[in-house]
Amino acid sequence: MAQLVVTYGKPADPAAFDAHYRDVHIPLAWAIPGLRRFEVAEGPVLTPEGPSDVYLIATLTFDSLADIAAAFASPQGQAAAGDVAGFATGGASMLMFETREV
Amino acid sequence: MAQLVVTYGKPADPAAFDAHYRDVHIPLAWAIPGLRRFEVAEGPVLTPEGPSDVYLIATLTFDSLADIAAAFASPQGQAAAGDVAGFATGGASMLMFETREV
Repeated sequence: MAQLVVTYGKPADPAAFDAHYRDVHIPLAWAIPGLRRFEVAEGPVLTPEGPSDVYLIATLTFDSLADIAAAFASPQGQAAAGDVAGFATGGASMLMFETREV
Repeated sequence: MAQLVVTYGKPADPAAFDAHYRDVHIPLAWAIPGLRRFEVAEGPVLTPEGPSDVYLIATLTFDSLADIAAAFASPQGQAAAGDVAGFATGGASMLMFETREV
């Protein structure tokens, strides 16, 4: 399995971000070929010391890094990435990696 | 479910880090009460543009944020956290949050 972790900074208008994320972005992301599982943080993202500067974390699971690369290259992936550029007013960063259970 | 995501920067001695992580840290972490699932990145952690400055990501899954707090407070959690302070020569940061599938 491989994961794409998207970390969003605090947006200018959290309520607008939340509505767009729920109503537009999640459906766009689910259209991406090869997506197996899609999890989002619910409630605050914390550090051991208290609040973090992260607003939302989303974890998208695919079968492999090759599938993530293919997803980014697909029209559906391009649409979802373009959508992020519009609504992520607090910034967004992405990390991707293969995972294994230990 | 709730996740604790630990992000490690590149260590001074990657081979020593890898050996310690495998032989010492994973067993210490599995001793933590309430840990349900433990995943680590295998191979490079990438961004869409190429390599990242992240050396390793570990995702520890618990039932709830309250269980993560209890884990940190436990002797086993204190032992694992103290171990991180010793081997994570490239730094380590932690984020924790409840998750839901969408």
